[in-house]
Amino acid sequence: MTDFLELDKLKEECGVIGVYAPGVENISQMLCFGLIALQHRGQESAGIAVLKDRKMQYYKEMGLVQEVFSSEILDRLPADIGIGHVRYSTTGESYVSNAQPLVVRYKGGSIALAHNGNLVNAGEIRDRLEDEGSIFQTSIDSEVIANLIAKNYHLGMREAVIEAVKEIRGSFALVVIIDNMLVGVRDPHGLRPLSLAKMDNGYVLASETCAHDVVGAEFIRDIEPGEIVVIDENGIESIMYDETKRKAVCCFEYVYFARPDSIIDGKNVFITRKKAGKILAQESPVEADMVIAVPDSGIAAAIGYAEESGIPFDIGLIKNKYMGRTFIQPDQKSRELAVRLKLNTMRENIEGKRLILIDDSIVRGTTSRRLVNMLKEAGATEVHIRVSSPPVSHSCYFGIDTPNRAQLIGATHTIEQIREMTEADSLAYLSVEGLVESIGMKKNELCTACFNGDYPMDVPKEGDKNMFEKC
Amino acid sequence: MTDFLELDKLKEECGVIGVYAPGVENISQMLCFGLIALQHRGQESAGIAVLKDRKMQYYKEMGLVQEVFSSEILDRLPADIGIGHVRYSTTGESYVSNAQPLVVRYKGGSIALAHNGNLVNAGEIRDRLEDEGSIFQTSIDSEVIANLIAKNYHLGMREAVIEAVKEIRGSFALVVIIDNMLVGVRDPHGLRPLSLAKMDNGYVLASETCAHDVVGAEFIRDIEPGEIVVIDENGIESIMYDETKRKAVCCFEYVYFARPDSIIDGKNVFITRKKAGKILAQESPVEADMVIAVPDSGIAAAIGYAEESGIPFDIGLIKNKYMGRTFIQPDQKSRELAVRLKLNTMRENIEGKRLILIDDSIVRGTTSRRLVNMLKEAGATEVHIRVSSPPVSHSCYFGIDTPNRAQLIGATHTIEQIREMTEADSLAYLSVEGLVESIGMKKNELCTACFNGDYPMDVPKEGDKNMFEKC
Amino acid sequence: MTDFLELDKLKEECGVIGVYAPGVENISQMLCFGLIALQHRGQESAGIAVLKDRKMQYYKEMGLVQEVFSSEILDRLPADIGIGHVRYSTTGESYVSNAQPLVVRYKGGSIALAHNGNLVNAGEIRDRLEDEGSIFQTSIDSEVIANLIAKNYHLGMREAVIEAVKEIRGSFALVVIIDNMLVGVRDPHGLRPLSLAKMDNGYVLASETCAHDVVGAEFIRDIEPGEIVVIDENGIESIMYDETKRKAVCCFEYVYFARPDSIIDGKNVFITRKKAGKILAQESPVEADMVIAVPDSGIAAAIGYAEESGIPFDIGLIKNKYMGRTFIQPDQKSRELAVRLKLNTMRENIEGKRLILIDDSIVRGTTSRRLVNMLKEAGATEVHIRVSSPPVSHSCYFGIDTPNRAQLIGATHTIEQIREMTEADSLAYLSVEGLVESIGMKKNELCTACFNGDYPMDVPKEGDKNMFEKC
Amino acid sequence: MTDFLELDKLKEECGVIGVYAPGVENISQMLCFGLIALQHRGQESAGIAVLKDRKMQYYKEMGLVQEVFSSEILDRLPADIGIGHVRYSTTGESYVSNAQPLVVRYKGGSIALAHNGNLVNAGEIRDRLEDEGSIFQTSIDSEVIANLIAKNYHLGMREAVIEAVKEIRGSFALVVIIDNMLVGVRDPHGLRPLSLAKMDNGYVLASETCAHDVVGAEFIRDIEPGEIVVIDENGIESIMYDETKRKAVCCFEYVYFARPDSIIDGKNVFITRKKAGKILAQESPVEADMVIAVPDSGIAAAIGYAEESGIPFDIGLIKNKYMGRTFIQPDQKSRELAVRLKLNTMRENIEGKRLILIDDSIVRGTTSRRLVNMLKEAGATEVHIRVSSPPVSHSCYFGIDTPNRAQLIGATHTIEQIREMTEADSLAYLSVEGLVESIGMKKNELCTACFNGDYPMDVPKEGDKNMFEKC
Repeated sequence: MTDFLELDKLKEECGVIGVYAPGVENISQMLCFGLIALQHRGQESAGIAVLKDRKMQYYKEMGLVQEVFSSEILDRLPADIGIGHVRYSTTGESYVSNAQPLVVRYKGGSIALAHNGNLVNAGEIRDRLEDEGSIFQTSIDSEVIANLIAKNYHLGMREAVIEAVKEIRGSFALVVIIDNMLVGVRDPHGLRPLSLAKMDNGYVLASETCAHDVVGAEFIRDIEPGEIVVIDENGIESIMYDETKRKAVCCFEYVYFARPDSIIDGKNVFITRKKAGKILAQESPVEADMVIAVPDSGIAAAIGYAEESGIPFDIGLIKNKYMGRTFIQPDQKSRELAVRLKLNTMRENIEGKRLILIDDSIVRGTTSRRLVNMLKEAGATEVHIRVSSPPVSHSCYFGIDTPNRAQLIGATHTIEQIREMTEADSLAYLSVEGLVESIGMKKNELCTACFNGDYPMDVPKEGDKNMFEKC
Repeated sequence: MTDFLELDKLKEECGVIGVYAPGVENISQMLCFGLIALQHRGQESAGIAVLKDRKMQYYKEMGLVQEVFSSEILDRLPADIGIGHVRYSTTGESYVSNAQPLVVRYKGGSIALAHNGNLVNAGEIRDRLEDEGSIFQTSIDSEVIANLIAKNYHLGMREAVIEAVKEIRGSFALVVIIDNMLVGVRDPHGLRPLSLAKMDNGYVLASETCAHDVVGAEFIRDIEPGEIVVIDENGIESIMYDETKRKAVCCFEYVYFARPDSIIDGKNVFITRKKAGKILAQESPVEADMVIAVPDSGIAAAIGYAEESGIPFDIGLIKNKYMGRTFIQPDQKSRELAVRLKLNTMRENIEGKRLILIDDSIVRGTTSRRLVNMLKEAGATEVHIRVSSPPVSHSCYFGIDTPNRAQLIGATHTIEQIREMTEADSLAYLSVEGLVESIGMKKNELCTACFNGDYPMDVPKEGDKNMFEKC
Repeated sequence: MTDFLELDKLKEECGVIGVYAPGVENISQMLCFGLIALQHRGQESAGIAVLKDRKMQYYKEMGLVQEVFSSEILDRLPADIGIGHVRYSTTGESYVSNAQPLVVRYKGGSIALAHNGNLVNAGEIRDRLEDEGSIFQTSIDSEVIANLIAKNYHLGMREAVIEAVKEIRGSFALVVIIDNMLVGVRDPHGLRPLSLAKMDNGYVLASETCAHDVVGAEFIRDIEPGEIVVIDENGIESIMYDETKRKAVCCFEYVYFARPDSIIDGKNVFITRKKAGKILAQESPVEADMVIAVPDSGIAAAIGYAEESGIPFDIGLIKNKYMGRTFIQPDQKSRELAVRLKLNTMRENIEGKRLILIDDSIVRGTTSRRLVNMLKEAGATEVHIRVSSPPVSHSCYFGIDTPNRAQLIGATHTIEQIREMTEADSLAYLSVEGLVESIGMKKNELCTACFNGDYPMDVPKEGDKNMFEKC
Repeated sequence: MTDFLELDKLKEECGVIGVYAPGVENISQMLCFGLIALQHRGQESAGIAVLKDRKMQYYKEMGLVQEVFSSEILDRLPADIGIGHVRYSTTGESYVSNAQPLVVRYKGGSIALAHNGNLVNAGEIRDRLEDEGSIFQTSIDSEVIANLIAKNYHLGMREAVIEAVKEIRGSFALVVIIDNMLVGVRDPHGLRPLSLAKMDNGYVLASETCAHDVVGAEFIRDIEPGEIVVIDENGIESIMYDETKRKAVCCFEYVYFARPDSIIDGKNVFITRKKAGKILAQESPVEADMVIAVPDSGIAAAIGYAEESGIPFDIGLIKNKYMGRTFIQPDQKSRELAVRLKLNTMRENIEGKRLILIDDSIVRGTTSRRLVNMLKEAGATEVHIRVSSPPVSHSCYFGIDTPNRAQLIGATHTIEQIREMTEADSLAYLSVEGLVESIGMKKNELCTACFNGDYPMDVPKEGDKNMFEKC
């Protein structure tokens, strides 16, 4: 079944983790636990690469972390240092060769590399490398980065990494095993998150702090935009390789991508979402009997909206937790029924009620109409949609799979038109200012490009989308 | 990983569905959709049996519905009438031969039978049948019932079914295909639920109304305790085969088993749970800053408690939806970490707060202590446990997998002792009267035996547990 | 790809094995090894049942022995006594419930039963049992036998087995675990083979002696027609339960079914096949340059024919050993090519040669024409077919899957017509007398019914084929 | 079970196929059929790469061809041009990334490359490329070759291929898709075979002619040592890129590797094996009653030996065709039994006979002793081993997995010592001259290095084995 709920969401990007802990057992298992905590960032493939006594091994496969790995496989992957990756693919063709980490051999040994983000100049660099006779075996940015590092090997590996990351533009949170070191890199804008934690006898790098929690590591700090951290037997060294760019943390991590229990750049995601709900209640109040959420992503904002408005939070829609991703292909008629496999209304609880329905975002709008209809059919007298982020009106070039602008309802319709389409009684979005306030940073420390086109760097023209797989 | 959350819950029983709709396409698919909606009632095996032009076929296998069935398999199972079953097994040995529906050949053709419940006299009847030379190939009650029906075939099949169900004692909701009829039976006490719905050109029987919703059928009524319904080309016939027993609907369907969007014997499950939360707030108030739930089953009661107490409902614990049932066997140390794979605290949201933690039930108590510790570690200043059902103190003989009384904390400890074990600041259970009130039936229409030992019929002595597989 | 080679062969029946060796380790593994040796008798499903300390367990599944079993599964099946079965199904519907051994519970405990053969009165008996209210869950004869045993349990199990086998008619080689005994039974005609061997601290029963070899057991003797052997802690007891019938050993075991290294009723299969080739050379000589075989089943007779005729044996056709049973469905054109995936000509070796092509049997004749054409295309100047058995002209009712008489080329065509169809330069079959002589028994000790209609007992009329699955 | 028969054989190398036939349907299926015919050359992984309308796609996976491919997968791979590969890996670590064909992107588009053979200067070239900053993602020679081609892209792709193959040393039969062309290359010594065939509207290149047969293509000629063939819309162009080296066709293709129905460099493999048997009979006659073969590879020579000696060919050992490659790990005792799962003696046929046992080669010698013992135990009075190739005494560097010299019995023992070890009554090998004569080429057109150390080019010193995976 097409997952109609997820159809209307921007797609998750990738997640990365790295562990440096020579002498500690079970590092491969920790990587797996961390990847399970990051699974929401990518469900297509999973992989880990480990270095033990300078020998590199890896395992990666299509599927969820728990489908890909078993105790038996982990036992064959002893580690001093390890990195892991979960991936969401933007294309139908999903070659396992595009799974990460990418492990390559270069002059000085092996490099393993895992990348979350999207380079805007990968094509350019690749062209240049191909001019010199390089070949490419994958369609992922990471291969370009690995080539750049290898080209500079004569500078020593620390310098080689620095030179490489200076050449690339776009969004990136990288974890790299090279030369007995674990290296973490965050792009100069800090578009993608990366944070550092301390564990007994070691360190952990991860896209989100929820991954630190499951390995029992204690959060230290976020990696700074433009920072490289090198972790080896001498401890942690920090190198600021580019401090010329403005900070531009991705808003959508707070809106939808990140887990609510994660802290990104000092802000707890759940708290920002609840705050967004409160501000939304201030900006767009409406008289009603009950605040309900589109599960699960709308819950935090709904609680905030309820708290601010004084209208009680309650349950109007329930999700079937046994509804997997793939299934029997239903014909048109059963498709209509099948949506109820995923989501059902709490009829008796909402009958005769005026509802405020909180969603975190609307991309295409088709789902919203279905939900409004289901709720009314179940007896709701009014349904007022409140969206806890602004309309998405511009494509992302930094690692998020946005449809073409032509398919973004926020780019092509007025809010009143959208309301009509959804058949809601009223509809309102959070303002950009409200979103910024909810996160608690300055506006120019955030990337709000998908809402207002204010990109932190030059981006390709529409139609000229980068040929590389994003991640 | 041992699933520590589910360890502390009574186990789900089975779920059944039946569809009578000659001429309608996709009946097999409907059965599957219905079973997915009932998946929470049994995740071990799934199966369907179908009759088309008087030819019976079936398919059943270990696994979740979506693992067992594919479009290809369903295409090979055209149907006029069909039944389906999902099963939870109480034993480690799970032969596929114990999966249901059971399909047998008898004098007059084929019978297919799916059963939710547990017979207390199955052993007795089997002994008698074996005395006459019968053999048994499974360890499920259903085989005993099929034998009883076949023994009476000479009376005609309607009468044979009536005679058979008069002989069995215990809990049962049955759906049966026999002689071109779909038959539904509910035990004289109505211990297990079964409801009837109407669809275009046909009828649906299901354990819960949520299964009607996904096939687009409209709820008509519950099958009565002691009622047989026979659905065939002449429509529906109702036969009251035993009206001598008191009604004794299972309380635990409302407390934990059933889906919140289902209606059982006229009562919506979510509403009863919310009501239970409200009464709990009246019975056992406590001063606090926030009401949180053990996800997902405590949410409804938590909302009710919050509403009644005026203390805001909020999120303190979050579940990882990608945490599957089986995984890497962790060693002792990683086990401690691994619990966080399943559940994490919303640290920033609860820091410095006094919490009321709502759980629907406590069986062993070990989980409660872990949760209290996790919450305190995350900064909660107080944790008050409120349980939205009474202490479970007696074994169930009617289809629920209760541990021995010795393992039931409610049978062996005082409430103060339990509070000490859980390290909570206070702990209170809902009273039996409160539970009864929340459901909205009379006390003597409900089975409250697991709370007070008041069994609606004679049951085997402790230690003398029926050797048959429950379901 | 349709396997064009096997299309023209009668289908293998089933194979059984039993081991009695309390105290010996690895009995489950031995059963598996034995079943691999018997795999040629059935490739559809495989299973074993074991008794240890009076506890019965079993495992059976669709697939080859090595697909069904693993070390892990065998480790869970400790045994004092065990039986095993491989099955070939004559129908497309292959429910795993029809796999054997059949394990049932009866008054006195458990019975496990594995059966090779086909009962001609199973329907009749089943009707009678159903009249008494029995139900049936499979479509295999074995279930009828188990019921008969259970009906007589009050006589004691030895007597119950005797009474049961006296009631059934047809072909059967049975191995049964009952009441801590291993029981072997052969039908009164001895249609299907069963032999006994001695191992350290135990005994083995098997369809063919090649299974004894792989478990290191030493052949003692064949079970006699009409004999029951009971093996228990007191040793072996032999019971002659029916000595009124003539011996009628199945000829086709020697012609095609059995492995060449097996000894059946005192005759080594390879030796009888070589002898058949020699007699065929005497009966139907022809001038030629080379004797070649249809691999692999024609090789023994070809060596005999070569030896007798003085014309050298050589290789003209070679089989691809990596050609599995299922594959890509080719369109018409690639089907023609695909036959060469299975079999290719040894062009340079046969160019310009006059060939004698030895096949063990011809059922439909289509394959023979293809082979003649392939050989001529490869340069053979003449191809003379010699078949080392007589034309198959009658259906089998004793466990062999023969097509309807209308599809048996030997029933509908003269030998000259068959020669024309195959486009061979000449064609001759072995005579029935020649076949009998090659086996070395008296004609009235063999069942030659498929060649001449001389059935050893009354059989159903054509069109009235027994509804039970054969085996 | 350790496969004791194959333990004593040199391991097969890889097999390649290429098809150029724009407009023809089912090219992917043809590639699969061809790979099945070549499956004996590698059972570890299989893959194909196809070009359709200049778009390259590929699919490769661990496993046999029929395990890797399905109709569904082939349907997704439409082709104008395609190549395929089956692989045998010499190491335990078998990353799918080492499976072939290798598909890479270079300046001008995509290259797909499949390689049979082993480069002796791959390490050297890779070092040089790494000095320039290249990275490597696999451990297969093919990646080196692809890099060399890409480095020369500015010369145009025909020239780039020529330049690349001029740099590599060792054995190679290559098929390459590049720039809408199918290119075939054979190394200057012709160590590994490659042949060309014509089909309707297209051409086929394959390691062995048996692959031509299954796709219905007609053999044209072998590719010459030092030849490149370029097949495109203009037809076939032949380029002799190196005519300075002596021809050195691998003897072992005739002795063991190739299928008997293949023709390699003008010689039919079966005919050369039969001839080897005849010469062996002349060189090493012995008085006996019967000539038998170690199945299947000794059969051709046994037939030749029988024909020359006048002693009849017969069957003494029979192979179980259902014995797969992997199985239950037997303990020591069952290991002894388990050998009989693979091979059994034809006791009655050999009892009291003096046997000549023909094997194609002996590597370690352990198997020979077991066979001699089995045969004597079955009643053979004498067993005389005759080996239809000379003792293997030197390692191969050209694509065959020979053990270290220390493990080659032919390098460390005299023939009399080997006889003693095998417990045979006599033992003789074919002479190098006899082998050369049986093949029918001049000695200096063959590589006989594994028998006499006469390598056609400089090879690494012992212990300095190339780090790349062979193939």
